[in-house]
Amino acid sequence: MAFRIEKDTMGEVKVPIDKLWGAQTQRSIMNFPIGSPASMPIEIIKAFGYLKKASAHANYKLGLLSEEKKELISVVCDEIINGKLNDQFPLVVWQTGSGTQTNMNCNEVISNRAEQIRGGEPGGDNNFIHPNDDVNKSQSSNDTFPTAMHIAAIKILNEVTLPGIKLLQNTLETKAGELDDVVKTGRTHLMDATPLTLGQEFSAFAAQLKYGINSLERTLDHLSELALGGTAVGTGLNAPKGYDELVARLISEFTGFSFKTAPNKFEALASQDALVESHGALKQLAVSLMKIANDIRLLASGPRSGLGEILIPENEPGSSIMPGKVNPTQAEALTMVCAQIMGNDVTISISGSNGHLQLNVFKPVIIYNFLQSAQLLGDACVSFNNNCAIGIKPNHERIKMHLDNSLMLVTALNPHIGYYKAAEIAKKAHNENTTLKEAALALGYLAEEEFDKWVDPSKMIGK
Amino acid sequence: MAFRIEKDTMGEVKVPIDKLWGAQTQRSIMNFPIGSPASMPIEIIKAFGYLKKASAHANYKLGLLSEEKKELISVVCDEIINGKLNDQFPLVVWQTGSGTQTNMNCNEVISNRAEQIRGGEPGGDNNFIHPNDDVNKSQSSNDTFPTAMHIAAIKILNEVTLPGIKLLQNTLETKAGELDDVVKTGRTHLMDATPLTLGQEFSAFAAQLKYGINSLERTLDHLSELALGGTAVGTGLNAPKGYDELVARLISEFTGFSFKTAPNKFEALASQDALVESHGALKQLAVSLMKIANDIRLLASGPRSGLGEILIPENEPGSSIMPGKVNPTQAEALTMVCAQIMGNDVTISISGSNGHLQLNVFKPVIIYNFLQSAQLLGDACVSFNNNCAIGIKPNHERIKMHLDNSLMLVTALNPHIGYYKAAEIAKKAHNENTTLKEAALALGYLAEEEFDKWVDPSKMIGK
Amino acid sequence: MAFRIEKDTMGEVKVPIDKLWGAQTQRSIMNFPIGSPASMPIEIIKAFGYLKKASAHANYKLGLLSEEKKELISVVCDEIINGKLNDQFPLVVWQTGSGTQTNMNCNEVISNRAEQIRGGEPGGDNNFIHPNDDVNKSQSSNDTFPTAMHIAAIKILNEVTLPGIKLLQNTLETKAGELDDVVKTGRTHLMDATPLTLGQEFSAFAAQLKYGINSLERTLDHLSELALGGTAVGTGLNAPKGYDELVARLISEFTGFSFKTAPNKFEALASQDALVESHGALKQLAVSLMKIANDIRLLASGPRSGLGEILIPENEPGSSIMPGKVNPTQAEALTMVCAQIMGNDVTISISGSNGHLQLNVFKPVIIYNFLQSAQLLGDACVSFNNNCAIGIKPNHERIKMHLDNSLMLVTALNPHIGYYKAAEIAKKAHNENTTLKEAALALGYLAEEEFDKWVDPSKMIGK
Amino acid sequence: MAFRIEKDTMGEVKVPIDKLWGAQTQRSIMNFPIGSPASMPIEIIKAFGYLKKASAHANYKLGLLSEEKKELISVVCDEIINGKLNDQFPLVVWQTGSGTQTNMNCNEVISNRAEQIRGGEPGGDNNFIHPNDDVNKSQSSNDTFPTAMHIAAIKILNEVTLPGIKLLQNTLETKAGELDDVVKTGRTHLMDATPLTLGQEFSAFAAQLKYGINSLERTLDHLSELALGGTAVGTGLNAPKGYDELVARLISEFTGFSFKTAPNKFEALASQDALVESHGALKQLAVSLMKIANDIRLLASGPRSGLGEILIPENEPGSSIMPGKVNPTQAEALTMVCAQIMGNDVTISISGSNGHLQLNVFKPVIIYNFLQSAQLLGDACVSFNNNCAIGIKPNHERIKMHLDNSLMLVTALNPHIGYYKAAEIAKKAHNENTTLKEAALALGYLAEEEFDKWVDPSKMIGK
Repeated sequence: MAFRIEKDTMGEVKVPIDKLWGAQTQRSIMNFPIGSPASMPIEIIKAFGYLKKASAHANYKLGLLSEEKKELISVVCDEIINGKLNDQFPLVVWQTGSGTQTNMNCNEVISNRAEQIRGGEPGGDNNFIHPNDDVNKSQSSNDTFPTAMHIAAIKILNEVTLPGIKLLQNTLETKAGELDDVVKTGRTHLMDATPLTLGQEFSAFAAQLKYGINSLERTLDHLSELALGGTAVGTGLNAPKGYDELVARLISEFTGFSFKTAPNKFEALASQDALVESHGALKQLAVSLMKIANDIRLLASGPRSGLGEILIPENEPGSSIMPGKVNPTQAEALTMVCAQIMGNDVTISISGSNGHLQLNVFKPVIIYNFLQSAQLLGDACVSFNNNCAIGIKPNHERIKMHLDNSLMLVTALNPHIGYYKAAEIAKKAHNENTTLKEAALALGYLAEEEFDKWVDPSKMIGK
Repeated sequence: MAFRIEKDTMGEVKVPIDKLWGAQTQRSIMNFPIGSPASMPIEIIKAFGYLKKASAHANYKLGLLSEEKKELISVVCDEIINGKLNDQFPLVVWQTGSGTQTNMNCNEVISNRAEQIRGGEPGGDNNFIHPNDDVNKSQSSNDTFPTAMHIAAIKILNEVTLPGIKLLQNTLETKAGELDDVVKTGRTHLMDATPLTLGQEFSAFAAQLKYGINSLERTLDHLSELALGGTAVGTGLNAPKGYDELVARLISEFTGFSFKTAPNKFEALASQDALVESHGALKQLAVSLMKIANDIRLLASGPRSGLGEILIPENEPGSSIMPGKVNPTQAEALTMVCAQIMGNDVTISISGSNGHLQLNVFKPVIIYNFLQSAQLLGDACVSFNNNCAIGIKPNHERIKMHLDNSLMLVTALNPHIGYYKAAEIAKKAHNENTTLKEAALALGYLAEEEFDKWVDPSKMIGK
Repeated sequence: MAFRIEKDTMGEVKVPIDKLWGAQTQRSIMNFPIGSPASMPIEIIKAFGYLKKASAHANYKLGLLSEEKKELISVVCDEIINGKLNDQFPLVVWQTGSGTQTNMNCNEVISNRAEQIRGGEPGGDNNFIHPNDDVNKSQSSNDTFPTAMHIAAIKILNEVTLPGIKLLQNTLETKAGELDDVVKTGRTHLMDATPLTLGQEFSAFAAQLKYGINSLERTLDHLSELALGGTAVGTGLNAPKGYDELVARLISEFTGFSFKTAPNKFEALASQDALVESHGALKQLAVSLMKIANDIRLLASGPRSGLGEILIPENEPGSSIMPGKVNPTQAEALTMVCAQIMGNDVTISISGSNGHLQLNVFKPVIIYNFLQSAQLLGDACVSFNNNCAIGIKPNHERIKMHLDNSLMLVTALNPHIGYYKAAEIAKKAHNENTTLKEAALALGYLAEEEFDKWVDPSKMIGK
Repeated sequence: MAFRIEKDTMGEVKVPIDKLWGAQTQRSIMNFPIGSPASMPIEIIKAFGYLKKASAHANYKLGLLSEEKKELISVVCDEIINGKLNDQFPLVVWQTGSGTQTNMNCNEVISNRAEQIRGGEPGGDNNFIHPNDDVNKSQSSNDTFPTAMHIAAIKILNEVTLPGIKLLQNTLETKAGELDDVVKTGRTHLMDATPLTLGQEFSAFAAQLKYGINSLERTLDHLSELALGGTAVGTGLNAPKGYDELVARLISEFTGFSFKTAPNKFEALASQDALVESHGALKQLAVSLMKIANDIRLLASGPRSGLGEILIPENEPGSSIMPGKVNPTQAEALTMVCAQIMGNDVTISISGSNGHLQLNVFKPVIIYNFLQSAQLLGDACVSFNNNCAIGIKPNHERIKMHLDNSLMLVTALNPHIGYYKAAEIAKKAHNENTTLKEAALALGYLAEEEFDKWVDPSKMIGK
């Protein structure tokens, strides 16, 4: 392989000739051979694209950077944002905990790519655009990396996660309406209970997601605060006055999402609480979705020896050995995603709690887990929605069979004959395997007309 | 031991003569010998006191209960609320997952105690007040227990947790102000970095807690929604129209906190997401406090071989073998509490995700963990505040020594001589163990006056 | 309240006259008002009883303590072990992370109670037995507290946890044998699958617990290593040569369990990995038991609208509103315990990972969670065993109905007609709601005799 | 794009012409657009290579498969094992929870690739090797997928994880030896304590890892048990007698690792406890390594305002803004990995606990997390070892300075003058900022020669 020599303050390093990164990126490749290459999420790289562009504009406006340099940096940043330079970011999550090496990867690539665009030879010392003094001007890794984390988080939540959950929430709400006249047996403790409608059952799912969406949306405000302008420790050393507010405004403009400068930069570097907070809401949604998906597979269980009260779409052969088997595979994918998110929450909490003094140095692992959760949750909701939820249908035959047999309809008698006599009726029917009515009449606690009038599932559903 | 006979729908049970509970409570004692007795939190019992009283009033107003019964029930409920009957609630957390047995424990005790007040003999069948048909009227365990959970949660958050955190937050904010002129060395990656003030360092702590308080307060709204009125599965079977809103209003009145009836009772029984959501905020606070307490013990480390930049109160001898040792014990108690809460969050998440259909049956374990976290967090903040935070003082001597020696003051030279030359100076000073100024002048990159003008910590703190 | 004055190296403190503790205990009460009083587990106090007694004997044998002092200390320790002094240990878990205050609580109580036994007045300076110089001789909190943790852990695992799990494991294994001829439909993905016997289903439960027991027993070796003899930082300063081995031998003798001195005392103070390791096995068991208990309630669901293939004991009325309802309450208690243990594992892991240098200072929270898990797991297994598992019976009627209807019996045809044709048969029967045989014959893929010969559930169970 | 038509029991599907997979793989691509493509770990695919080859050999030996088919299947399996067909496995983790679609992906690719090798056209119906009836013969997804999980787990633990940890363990043990004469101040509660040697400090690290390695190795036995032969539900339906033992022997032969058939196939399908168990040991190691890496960065903190007692290699510029800064980046990467593993443990525990009846359907998420943890842990240990641990050096100057100043040397006086007088000396020195000796002599509790004789750090380290 052909190499060129790149330099940093520690000396020379060989870099593959066809790559645009510099010495520090190369050192990171060599020093951190941990897991798959390039595991640093591309969303972070693109967020750096917006950030470096906004920073160049801010530095230009504040008189610290020439127009020419600003323009060159912007051109490269647009290439990064558009994914044209994806293969120039080889670093892994498991690097320095401040993300410094990814910040330098961006600085180096921008510097070298700009040189290339100008017609020069990439390679360090003589680049027109200097990685530290120009691209990184008014910045530190310590404020850029958390800023990129927030940009990436806000983008994915708005573009993937929230739309996905809302799509599913909307379907569940629609189902709740459609199925609102299907009276069925309720179940508590997995045991037969008093009736409700299938629509009411789905309305609980829809309500759960609505609360979860609210929780998640309430975290966006803290997430929209950017550390940029705090530089090394939060004081803003080497960043000009006004830079922080200006650069937040420019990032808002370039990304189309609303950001503001963090009121306390020390907090914004030393903690990653905004992400801890926001992932807490993702975890809440995972808890809700685990429950919902479990219920749906339970209701769809069978086809002949389960509950079988709903029918879900048959999307693929379910078994390599059992012919004709169909499984609730979308529920399985979704619940696996939920388990992942619940574990990710622990990783993020541990990471968030382990910062020291002016800097949390678990930043890459935090954003890696956050982005995974946000992506998977959004995607899995869409998949579950399209391939399962919208196709759910009631199995009227089984629903009716279960409802007609239910001993818990006896509950309607409490106000008329009291809990104890009602219990006697239910037990008798259970032990003798008869209908409730037979048991009730045999015990003589009420007349047949009374039974027929009082024990009517359609009047037991709160409508 | 002397016994009396109590009955329920399954038959007769012997109950100690001096106890007011009935057959179902006694069955639970016998069937669930798991862990310490009476582990069901007393806060839940007291919440049931409010709930049963409000329910009696509502049933009376809606014409379902006589005034005499309403009054009798209220009298006993007040005794429960005032802790007079604490020894009548022997059940454990590890019972049925709906909390039915604790609901029945309350029903039975109210029934028997009312009989006693009337001058009768407690003991079942002939009680004037019937546990199921009167005390539990218009209710089910499935809506009372989650209602009691929300009442207990709202009360403890408002009475213990939030006041405790706010007290500490306020102290930290005050410290941030007081210490704002103490310039000191910053640290990132635990390594010397550019300076900031001790006040700025504390302002990050204060900011973290402020965000956490906001997060926690935002969860109160969902928590204030009560399941009561949903009865067995959420349909409200056997509860009269208007009962749900009325009883929520009465609970608000009796407790002094604002509650409302849950808009979707199915969700309110089948999930415990409001507690999952709220505990997520407690966990966020635990993450923040773990960081804060860690920093404080790190800054106070020494007295001679640590950082030693702050002095914390000396509250007790620290060691049984090392004479004169003083330890950051309040930080230790607080961080242990944080670890507990981070684990409790997993218990609550797992429990919240494992409901089935119309009912989550992990209710007791959820509220047990929630109340533990809320109590410990509030108490630990008060203890940390009173016995540590308010007494923190700067150790000016060490702060100055560290600051004067710091190589990272070199950062101020970046805008003047560039990052690379600045790095050269820092490395030279480090390797030759000299001052920055000596190295800078030896390298000839700037004049002494320039150094003195540019490298001034008091101008490097963003003010 | 009446007080006496106690002193420590920091000065005087008032102690209630009827209490035997000293100044440092009293300081801890005042400095750590966090959660319920006396939350430090009594098992730890009793473990200190064994430890202090063994230490007095060792010091005596090594010539450091008079026979009279040794005897006096032993007498008080026996009182502690026998629970006679339980109300003398008021401290909480949330104290110093080394447990120093509980060590001193023991030292002070032993000193004062010994004085009392001698006929003197308890109270500090002039006690015949000095808390630090005598009771704590050759020891530090840093080696005594982790030693007490290991003693308490070994005792509870052997006395409560393992017997409880083994009891249940044995019942499940017995059930597996008893039910081995009950052929039933299998279920994968909660959907009908090929048959197995109910005994085989239970054999999986028994096997899971067997693996878990093995895992747990393998952790006892590390747990049996005692830190005692390491004193303050692991070097054994102020402890005489041979003390560590001797005291471990004496602790073995007094407790009846086998202990040995830790080969590396530095590890034994700085980490609590033996407890992290052992709790990992408790967590594995919780994972297994969550699965088992879930399956049992699923199989018992109904009685009319669930799977209903097994019958479980009816122990108590299940509902305060639904008469005659019976619920799988033992499964609920057990799964709640499992959720608790899974969260406790996170608390213990976080706590174990957060030690610094020569000492882990999350010791109290670690042992508090460990003992809770160990107790609950053992108790819940016994309760589940006695009140549920031993009473499980097959519901032959439903089992037969499900088996006869199962479409997945078609799998037996794969080797004869291939997967694709078999799938066609299953789908046809499913869509047309017929029996498999009807569909098979209609498609003409095999003759009736072939069907009857090949599709025989009793030959599909691997026997 | 050009397509060909593939068929399964549900009908026709278009597959890209250049791909070897079939209808079911293509359905999975379409039905599960969740997260990045091809996220199913390649280690699982390779494990399937071994499994399918061994299965073909077993079926051949048992007379169920022709030699020609066996050979063809083997050839393709070798290609899979050698990574030649990596781009034929596009499926994601978030599919059906049994991994059926990945099993079918393997079956389809083997069938089509075999056809290609024979010179035919891949594409379904007429393939010489049938995906279900030949490649999957005697198998089900339900026993193949967990078998592949165990194969992949055993391989990665033996090839990556254990060698990595052992390398680091060995270095730490070597360091413990090398540094055993460097006496330094100890620290408990982060506060100065009695002395120990730097070697002793490192011996604790080495001991922790040794225990962790033991724990991990003890889990290999359960992991080496293979589900294969259980087919659909554990009964082994459609697998010939002896197949299970034979195929385990062949897998051992082909992989070079020792495997055996699981004694209880029902457990092996219904639970994934072997992986829960084994990951518990990975988590224990993560807990240990978090502690170790934290200590090392703490000891290396500075260079001027931290503890600074050890020097770690300077591998890269640490900051994009602070020139000359060097950070403990390897410790940061390692602790991030530890946080990841601690979260993964929760994901795996939740997933392991949520199986239903005959099948756990969280298999893909379990193995995905397991392999990530195993890879990262091994890699991070190697990286930390090579780039940090082996280069650690003592900073004698600071070590001596700290030791000489330590007030806790006073502990050596306890046996001579008692704890209380010793405390007085330490406090006096602390308050008056003098040396211990000055304070001791001023108080007159001992003579100078006594002090010099008794207070000698080199005699306080247990040697």
